[in-house]
Amino acid sequence: MNHVIAQTPEPPYYAVIFTSIRRAGDHGYSVMADRMFDLAAAQPGFLGVESAREELGISVSYWSDLESIRRWKANLEHQEARRLGRDIWYSAYRVRVAKVERDYGM
Amino acid sequence: MNHVIAQTPEPPYYAVIFTSIRRAGDHGYSVMADRMFDLAAAQPGFLGVESAREELGISVSYWSDLESIRRWKANLEHQEARRLGRDIWYSAYRVRVAKVERDYGM
Repeated sequence: MNHVIAQTPEPPYYAVIFTSIRRAGDHGYSVMADRMFDLAAAQPGFLGVESAREELGISVSYWSDLESIRRWKANLEHQEARRLGRDIWYSAYRVRVAKVERDYGM
Repeated sequence: MNHVIAQTPEPPYYAVIFTSIRRAGDHGYSVMADRMFDLAAAQPGFLGVESAREELGISVSYWSDLESIRRWKANLEHQEARRLGRDIWYSAYRVRVAKVERDYGM
């Protein structure tokens, strides 16, 4: 699921940068992470996601517009996953919503 | 260096999202990565960086404004590191420059 660089369209589009530090133990995290990936990918406006974790976890999801991000944030199953994240899985996290203005690569 | 979530100021500020896939072997990469971290951190406008690598590598550096990003891109030692990245270390990468409009966390 996170082994390739996301094939995003020409900017502008949006990125949600989610940086986190996990607590010890799985406690249902892995199953929920897979579920949230599948659920996000089915949302209107979803463009792709990239993830990696060492000491820090970084997941960047890409979206066509802010309204799509708002709808995803309002999704009830996603809200429940975020509640479990705050209560159980993460010791710290930060979410940054950013407008991609320019991109290039190889 | 990348074990904590970056302490960024109130938005707006900028994020440079660098996603990459490494070729096999170090070939001087680790030394250069440490050097580029130190050099970036010394630039005007640098706010912080977060990194993680599994199959994908994701490094997000934060900057106060686009001019700071332009200056860092123009730095000669950074240009040489990017050339080595294209020629030796990376099989693929993507750079996305994004304006952080909103952030929150725990």
